[in-house]
Amino acid sequence: MSKLKIGFVLAACMVFLVAIARPAARPIPQPQASLTNDPKLIEDLIYANRILYSQGVLDGFGHVSVRSDKDPSHFLMSRSMAPGLVTSADIMEYDANGEPVDARGRNSYLERYIHAAVYRARPDVKSVVHSHSLDIIPYSVTGTVLRPVYHMSAFLNLGAPIFDSHDEFGDTDMLIRNNQMGDALAKTMGKSGIALIRGHGFVAAAGSIPLSVYRAYYTQMNARLQSDSMKLGTVKFLTPGEAAKAQVATEGQAGRAWELWKSQVGKIE
Amino acid sequence: MSKLKIGFVLAACMVFLVAIARPAARPIPQPQASLTNDPKLIEDLIYANRILYSQGVLDGFGHVSVRSDKDPSHFLMSRSMAPGLVTSADIMEYDANGEPVDARGRNSYLERYIHAAVYRARPDVKSVVHSHSLDIIPYSVTGTVLRPVYHMSAFLNLGAPIFDSHDEFGDTDMLIRNNQMGDALAKTMGKSGIALIRGHGFVAAAGSIPLSVYRAYYTQMNARLQSDSMKLGTVKFLTPGEAAKAQVATEGQAGRAWELWKSQVGKIE
Amino acid sequence: MSKLKIGFVLAACMVFLVAIARPAARPIPQPQASLTNDPKLIEDLIYANRILYSQGVLDGFGHVSVRSDKDPSHFLMSRSMAPGLVTSADIMEYDANGEPVDARGRNSYLERYIHAAVYRARPDVKSVVHSHSLDIIPYSVTGTVLRPVYHMSAFLNLGAPIFDSHDEFGDTDMLIRNNQMGDALAKTMGKSGIALIRGHGFVAAAGSIPLSVYRAYYTQMNARLQSDSMKLGTVKFLTPGEAAKAQVATEGQAGRAWELWKSQVGKIE
Amino acid sequence: MSKLKIGFVLAACMVFLVAIARPAARPIPQPQASLTNDPKLIEDLIYANRILYSQGVLDGFGHVSVRSDKDPSHFLMSRSMAPGLVTSADIMEYDANGEPVDARGRNSYLERYIHAAVYRARPDVKSVVHSHSLDIIPYSVTGTVLRPVYHMSAFLNLGAPIFDSHDEFGDTDMLIRNNQMGDALAKTMGKSGIALIRGHGFVAAAGSIPLSVYRAYYTQMNARLQSDSMKLGTVKFLTPGEAAKAQVATEGQAGRAWELWKSQVGKIE
Repeated sequence: MSKLKIGFVLAACMVFLVAIARPAARPIPQPQASLTNDPKLIEDLIYANRILYSQGVLDGFGHVSVRSDKDPSHFLMSRSMAPGLVTSADIMEYDANGEPVDARGRNSYLERYIHAAVYRARPDVKSVVHSHSLDIIPYSVTGTVLRPVYHMSAFLNLGAPIFDSHDEFGDTDMLIRNNQMGDALAKTMGKSGIALIRGHGFVAAAGSIPLSVYRAYYTQMNARLQSDSMKLGTVKFLTPGEAAKAQVATEGQAGRAWELWKSQVGKIE
Repeated sequence: MSKLKIGFVLAACMVFLVAIARPAARPIPQPQASLTNDPKLIEDLIYANRILYSQGVLDGFGHVSVRSDKDPSHFLMSRSMAPGLVTSADIMEYDANGEPVDARGRNSYLERYIHAAVYRARPDVKSVVHSHSLDIIPYSVTGTVLRPVYHMSAFLNLGAPIFDSHDEFGDTDMLIRNNQMGDALAKTMGKSGIALIRGHGFVAAAGSIPLSVYRAYYTQMNARLQSDSMKLGTVKFLTPGEAAKAQVATEGQAGRAWELWKSQVGKIE
Repeated sequence: MSKLKIGFVLAACMVFLVAIARPAARPIPQPQASLTNDPKLIEDLIYANRILYSQGVLDGFGHVSVRSDKDPSHFLMSRSMAPGLVTSADIMEYDANGEPVDARGRNSYLERYIHAAVYRARPDVKSVVHSHSLDIIPYSVTGTVLRPVYHMSAFLNLGAPIFDSHDEFGDTDMLIRNNQMGDALAKTMGKSGIALIRGHGFVAAAGSIPLSVYRAYYTQMNARLQSDSMKLGTVKFLTPGEAAKAQVATEGQAGRAWELWKSQVGKIE
Repeated sequence: MSKLKIGFVLAACMVFLVAIARPAARPIPQPQASLTNDPKLIEDLIYANRILYSQGVLDGFGHVSVRSDKDPSHFLMSRSMAPGLVTSADIMEYDANGEPVDARGRNSYLERYIHAAVYRARPDVKSVVHSHSLDIIPYSVTGTVLRPVYHMSAFLNLGAPIFDSHDEFGDTDMLIRNNQMGDALAKTMGKSGIALIRGHGFVAAAGSIPLSVYRAYYTQMNARLQSDSMKLGTVKFLTPGEAAKAQVATEGQAGRAWELWKSQVGKIE
């Protein structure tokens, strides 16, 4: 039950760390063509990287992306690096197949096809998060279904399917490293807000950056609550009716957490 | 068993965060009519917001209020925002029905009716806390009764009833968003120091701000102790006689924790 | 198994907090007669307060004392306050019965009789710690015996008896608030390095301040290890022969942890 | 499941602590003959000390070493001190038998023979870590075999044998304090990337400093995942085929975590 707090501690301390580490960690931002019509989109993407790291959803690995408003078939994501250190100079544009439009020598995440596939399959999705969260992996390897324990994670009512690459692809290196595997993951995900990846992590998707961050964060909270509750006794989850109404109410308030998380991350570049 | 510590870490780090975040997060305080005869009441309310956040009782959500000393039928609470960022300019006055007296464009918490109902039902209560604590929700969804494991949480001897909105109101969005639901919660709470809300969180109430904070904090500690103890074996809880005496002794020392927590929060505005 | 780390995080963050909180929290030190022949004794006692707080052994409550080198029948301990904020001006001298020698209006801890009783019963003891550690209380309320899981806590081989005040004193407020209860606790403790207090906490004692701090800290570590190990299977504890030898080896290295912890606490007053 | 985060929090806070503690903790670096042809080797060794401490793999105890590039039969390791405080002036050279080449009054770790033995037995090993990790000890005392739960710890497919000194040496003080015990440990370790030491800790070894740190860190993560997963149900571990491929893919990305961890540690001396 300690994990919500731990997430916050992570927030606090990582932000501090990134802060003191910045001088060492920052490359000089290089001028580049605008990747979007709305500059706020890149700012929010950088905040999402920093927040997901500071909240413990991402560590040295994992990534978050946003659909381009300039070309909705494209998406924006950092070059291959630790999310907690991402700056505007690190943001790259990817096409519908997950290939970089203008790499300029920057490496791409091997698993960028997760994002490409979800954007192709889900026009309603504007932002995607991929994480190796230790809270959620135990559900993925035991086939335990995540269900909404409290109102904040009511969106789990949309489903939390588990994708096991072994079923279709046999022995792989577990990475979603091509569009074929990405499409299989997106198919398993269906219309859900998240999908678990067996022995690997999970994917969260939503109609905006703050909401994909909210869903990734509260999926972790629910995972902790569900594990702790199951140890105490039989769990009374939200009813489908409660969850449908609670999702509207709580996701409508997601901005309150987003503003707090931004204030914790402090100034970005 | 790690959760007390985690709470403290949260304290430390959040306070630090709020500190560095303050420049970005603070609106310019606006002049306003005094909401109370005792200015210390507002100062303590702001400290309570910061402390509950820094101790992990509140996160981006939840709230704390105090009964007005100017009009005891009214209460004071922050506008709708993350408790960790609250300043004096954010404190609003609410009437006996939970409606803002002078909103001046500031939004109110949807669940302010929790506070209004408890103040109406409990003349002895001077301060109310509402939290989504991950430590306590597992008890609310499994029907596990919180009982005092150690002297610090002896007040649980007063009871820790669980309110399930579904019993009386069926499928709702789980929020206590009107006085009817607030009254039902207050009725379930009765004379207890806390009440759990199924799939949502809990409410703590006491005769002063430091004591409502103390009860909210030590309810979490007891929840962690009780879960950890039940994993080890059969728990010998405090006897009713021990609890009655220990409550007097420990709540009489609550000021020591309050002073520490204030020193951790540092200067407020 | 996360708890060692949590303790360290507590260390880090609390120290930081105390640091920023100090200006607000510090009273002006007042001149006073030397309480000891060796000024280092007071310095170490203050470090012990700060370290035990920063390591999560103490929170707003609990205390640590040292036997006076000026009058070995007396001991030194802070006035009644949060250990994390203690300075040299707060150190008081107590006589063999736990009564203050020169209170000068300063309040004393209600449970100072724990210390007085152990010093009376154990000439070999030079320092005593009393804590409400959440790691250890579950053992006290379930009657689970702490045994050495690893070499660092080999001193548990000396025993870890549980004192239940209810056996001899019936319904009390759970506090060791007189010499009669203190003597009963000391009798239960016998020659052990620690004793648990049911529904309350524990006491650690040793021949020096760094060693009493070491024992309090590693009793927590062992509690976490033992709980986590019991969840995995049947535990092979250290054999009595291994524990006897390992205690000599590890307690002989206690200074390495003490120096680290001091460096974490930073400068004291 | 909270433990990955906790590790990171440790990282953040410890680094901060070490930072503020440095003035107090740092000895004046003394001029000395170069221990290596590649100065980066010492820099990386110091980073490894700081990172393993900040990530919670090491605390006041434990150590990390690197094989000398000047004399591959020798290795480099800090003098006996807390890893979190190590500077270049503290690095000593040890011969193939674990004896210091030029002690200059500096004390050596009692368990340096762990390193000497592994370097003698494993020409492929260039760096060795020894830790008392609370995450891993429960596996060592219950005989629970660590197996790869996710791709990041696929190297566990190489094996995670448990060394119990009692089998061959009977009642000892549990320390690997001579070459005979070191050789027995190395023999048990065989070609694995790690070996557990019953009631004591574990050893990680790899072909470079960043990779030995990576393996030590992700062994902890896997320990947490495996414990949490086993509580939920039957665990589907990586298949041998998946693990073999995933090890190549993930260890090939270890540099991303290393760069992040270095940025968290900040400037070293």
